[in-house]
Amino acid sequence: MHNIKLTLAYDGTDFHGWQIQPGQSTIQQAITDVLAKLAQERLAVHAAGRTDSGVHALGQVASFKTHSEMTPLEFQRALNALLPPAIRILACDEVGPDFHARWNAQAKTYIYRIYRGRVVPPFVWRYALHDPFQLDFDAMREAALLFEGERDFTSFAASTGSEEDDRDRGATRSIFQSEIFRGDDLSSKCASLDSLGLARPGPEEWIYLVRGRSFLRYMVRKITGTLIDVGRGRLRPDDIPRLFEMRDRSRSGPTLAPQGLCLLSVEYPDPADSLARRS
Amino acid sequence: MHNIKLTLAYDGTDFHGWQIQPGQSTIQQAITDVLAKLAQERLAVHAAGRTDSGVHALGQVASFKTHSEMTPLEFQRALNALLPPAIRILACDEVGPDFHARWNAQAKTYIYRIYRGRVVPPFVWRYALHDPFQLDFDAMREAALLFEGERDFTSFAASTGSEEDDRDRGATRSIFQSEIFRGDDLSSKCASLDSLGLARPGPEEWIYLVRGRSFLRYMVRKITGTLIDVGRGRLRPDDIPRLFEMRDRSRSGPTLAPQGLCLLSVEYPDPADSLARRS
Repeated sequence: MHNIKLTLAYDGTDFHGWQIQPGQSTIQQAITDVLAKLAQERLAVHAAGRTDSGVHALGQVASFKTHSEMTPLEFQRALNALLPPAIRILACDEVGPDFHARWNAQAKTYIYRIYRGRVVPPFVWRYALHDPFQLDFDAMREAALLFEGERDFTSFAASTGSEEDDRDRGATRSIFQSEIFRGDDLSSKCASLDSLGLARPGPEEWIYLVRGRSFLRYMVRKITGTLIDVGRGRLRPDDIPRLFEMRDRSRSGPTLAPQGLCLLSVEYPDPADSLARRS
Repeated sequence: MHNIKLTLAYDGTDFHGWQIQPGQSTIQQAITDVLAKLAQERLAVHAAGRTDSGVHALGQVASFKTHSEMTPLEFQRALNALLPPAIRILACDEVGPDFHARWNAQAKTYIYRIYRGRVVPPFVWRYALHDPFQLDFDAMREAALLFEGERDFTSFAASTGSEEDDRDRGATRSIFQSEIFRGDDLSSKCASLDSLGLARPGPEEWIYLVRGRSFLRYMVRKITGTLIDVGRGRLRPDDIPRLFEMRDRSRSGPTLAPQGLCLLSVEYPDPADSLARRS
């Protein structure tokens, strides 16, 4: 039995999210169908984060176990030949038997892109929210930092569900980094971008970046919606701690449209480290 | 009567080019239909360059004459509200009665994008040709420069037709700049990019940029195809002058796929200049 790790990017525009749903076109369905053909067996493919309908990924990670003797490079080439161009396997590696894309993930980084120019270029509308109206950048930046730390995110999530699992762990989540900056600063904030071949956003974009252990459903889109309410003056940075205490999702900002959201990367423990710890 | 100049960008993926064709979805058709509704009259919209099926534009220019009293800003807002997001009016200005987007154009700049990485990111495949194979960059750069000047481009064009008009002017065209460089140098080569909100290509892309007075049909795609033949070693830079002399389109490189091509900008005489010259 081989355990295979996929690093993949997708344009989520035309998909109903990651997870298989009857009668819908999903990323997991597309990959499972191709793998079934290649490996001649039914496989279960697990992703680090179950992105919602319309959400993109630049560095999603998925894993599956197979009896197939195809090499990782053969899997990558065949998958890219048979998948639509909107889904690309960026890397494919054989990993140890204990690796699981979802359970072993230590951190995930998402960005939410807000296009600030008056007219959205036709090459950007699929990947950003358009908000050309006046927003107080400094207030938003101040508010963004207040989401860092371990907190109960009930006020900043969908009423049910979490992005990565079905286990009930309550609404407490750990956020390591929560920051808003201009698009042309993205490369300096995130070194992995260059290796992913992403066209770099320009200064007309504002980008909210959040890195955390795991996330509740709609959490990033609702935090960004709250930050826009702060930018608009409907909320002040001082209101954020109060909103956390309320545990009332109706008081925070709206859940923004999915097309601005992109799963940038997933981090795992260094295999050498975990080996060392085990021995 | 008002004369209106439009500067527009479009993602050509889902269009059969600029020009109206019966039963096909084209950019000119989409704009003409919306303008007919807005101005309540039939209008003729002329573009600087009649881009082919699947070709993109970041700075196409078009013009039309209308009896409507709508202001340019009203036209721009209404067009952007009614057009699909793949077509965006970046600017709209009232111009003098003699302005014609096609006849007055002094220069046009096109880029052709070649993605060199092993796997095309899902956000790039609509806008670049994928060529991950070995190419001699220096030979291509040397060859590219040999297309500058006034020349008979019979060997580097479709058998009939020119991009901008139906008048028979033969196949002689003037090329002011013909250059290949890496994607991350694009901003330094072309200052107008920042104002257009283009996501910047990364170093994984090679870009052929050509600026000329006007172009024959398929000319940019066939020149770039010839440059790739040089990169591959099938032709040498020395062969280019001989290919010009042959006036035989079957001897030069192939016409590359349309999705790599983008009309970057169109230049017109400075209005103040032409006024001064006229007086």
